[in-house]
Amino acid sequence: MIRIAVTDGISPKAIEMLENEGFEVIIGHHEPEEISEGSLSKFDAVVIRSATKLPANQISASVTSEGGLRFIGRAGVGVDNIDIHEATKNGIVVCNTPGASTRSVVELTIGHLIASTRNITTADRTLRAGEWAKNMLRGSEIGGKRLGLVGFGRIARGVAEAARSFGMETHAYDPYVDGNIRGTVMHKNVDDVFRHCTHVSVHCNLTEETRNLVNFERISLMPGIGADGIECGNHIVSCARGGIVDEEAAGKALENGQLQTLALDVFDKEPLGDSPLLDLDSFHGSPHIAASTLEAQARIGTEMASLLIEFFNTGKTSTSIN
Amino acid sequence: MIRIAVTDGISPKAIEMLENEGFEVIIGHHEPEEISEGSLSKFDAVVIRSATKLPANQISASVTSEGGLRFIGRAGVGVDNIDIHEATKNGIVVCNTPGASTRSVVELTIGHLIASTRNITTADRTLRAGEWAKNMLRGSEIGGKRLGLVGFGRIARGVAEAARSFGMETHAYDPYVDGNIRGTVMHKNVDDVFRHCTHVSVHCNLTEETRNLVNFERISLMPGIGADGIECGNHIVSCARGGIVDEEAAGKALENGQLQTLALDVFDKEPLGDSPLLDLDSFHGSPHIAASTLEAQARIGTEMASLLIEFFNTGKTSTSIN
Repeated sequence: MIRIAVTDGISPKAIEMLENEGFEVIIGHHEPEEISEGSLSKFDAVVIRSATKLPANQISASVTSEGGLRFIGRAGVGVDNIDIHEATKNGIVVCNTPGASTRSVVELTIGHLIASTRNITTADRTLRAGEWAKNMLRGSEIGGKRLGLVGFGRIARGVAEAARSFGMETHAYDPYVDGNIRGTVMHKNVDDVFRHCTHVSVHCNLTEETRNLVNFERISLMPGIGADGIECGNHIVSCARGGIVDEEAAGKALENGQLQTLALDVFDKEPLGDSPLLDLDSFHGSPHIAASTLEAQARIGTEMASLLIEFFNTGKTSTSIN
Repeated sequence: MIRIAVTDGISPKAIEMLENEGFEVIIGHHEPEEISEGSLSKFDAVVIRSATKLPANQISASVTSEGGLRFIGRAGVGVDNIDIHEATKNGIVVCNTPGASTRSVVELTIGHLIASTRNITTADRTLRAGEWAKNMLRGSEIGGKRLGLVGFGRIARGVAEAARSFGMETHAYDPYVDGNIRGTVMHKNVDDVFRHCTHVSVHCNLTEETRNLVNFERISLMPGIGADGIECGNHIVSCARGGIVDEEAAGKALENGQLQTLALDVFDKEPLGDSPLLDLDSFHGSPHIAASTLEAQARIGTEMASLLIEFFNTGKTSTSIN
């Protein structure tokens, strides 16, 4: 019988799916010392979130000459807590559920974008302070403007589709995407996205290549005047990963007016704690909640269960990390 | 030559359009005493905003046996500063520019909706207070849910289109709209909209019929569970007019949990000043800024110029108040 360890929790629906398939599901945390002593080697698969760490030594401790782990499932997106190379070396398939949170991130991105262009957090803050700041809060429309997408994977494409429904023109740069994508102008370098767009949304991974990619120089390229001729200023939003937007540079650009608004769900240092950005009305933020929805959490479970069922019934998965 | 008085200002683009048509445009305020002495009777049309008042006596003073005013343009929406009945009696066409702010209101409505379902204002407020409230801020997606539109005019239709691009199913009630509208389920009474929809957006005028239309009983009809089976709670947004949502009833529903969020751009009493709603995290608001965008203000001018050109070239307008 296939035995699956679930160390950081999963949705009840997912457990039901796995048990209906005849798999044994054992829920419970494994301490690092237990894992290094081989506690996971008694399972065919383990499903983790971010709490369980699987560096090389923990992975090698989970395989024996007779068998052990064949599948590591990350219920969620980030796999920086798993040594993929070591897993591959030991013939272990690693899968995550990147699609499960796509819709949630798309919605928060558009929400943050309009919250920026229409001053929603400042509006609410002044209202709560007993002020009626109507005359201070003139905003601008996103319709008729260009939205530049840095990275053009699944989430960025969802954002592009939603943005176009508001009448935005979408532009993108992604060195890993070949060819043309219907409806979006693809650029050959990232600077051109900034040069063309008053609105920019970040959707790439954090890598050495993308660290501080949104820097003072690139923000300085942004045109300030919309494609429709309206002086809407420049606006940046990121629900991707902290460290891609250079927060200090963006803060300076907010102060000198080159950037009219900045909305961040992710920060270089999390929890954010204190930050000079928090003194600016032109900034607003949220504590890394882009995937924190009921729907994304439910989908993560059922998507992971489907991957496990596929793997143990057919020996492979339609999608995997390694 | 057609002579147009512009008493409260208009965009330079609009003046250019009118002058290109060969019309004479005279910009300048008229004092009430001047108007009652017939200052406007030397013009074919007058364009006002809210500063110039045209009650019955001022309108009759603007027509003579040889001619006088034939067109009153209100650059904006509200026409409570114009005696429409008297204008009609004197054969004067009255036009406003209600469409100019449609896109702005649509965008703010969607912005407020996502700000509600994703706790954007609470997220920002806690972040500014130095908290990292990630675990308290689980939201829900709008995709897969039903959006109920109370009133189904131009703005509501724009909201419906945007909402559908996010995967919402749209429902509406409007006693003044006949027949079926593609893509939206039309209901025969307003209660059915509340009964079917976890998300409701208000888009009707304030009349005796609609005052306190969104009351405790109707909020109690809302299902709490989304069309996709997710327990997303109930959410109401209004960027229409104050007084349609019964604020006291909505506050009670927020407190007892029947309503999960409420977002208001308009209030029964404006400025809002103090309100029990401001003590609730589940409420957020803005000070009547739905039309406060650069684009809406620019469009008001060009739309009014187009109406004037149409009227003086064809003798009628495709849309008018009387």
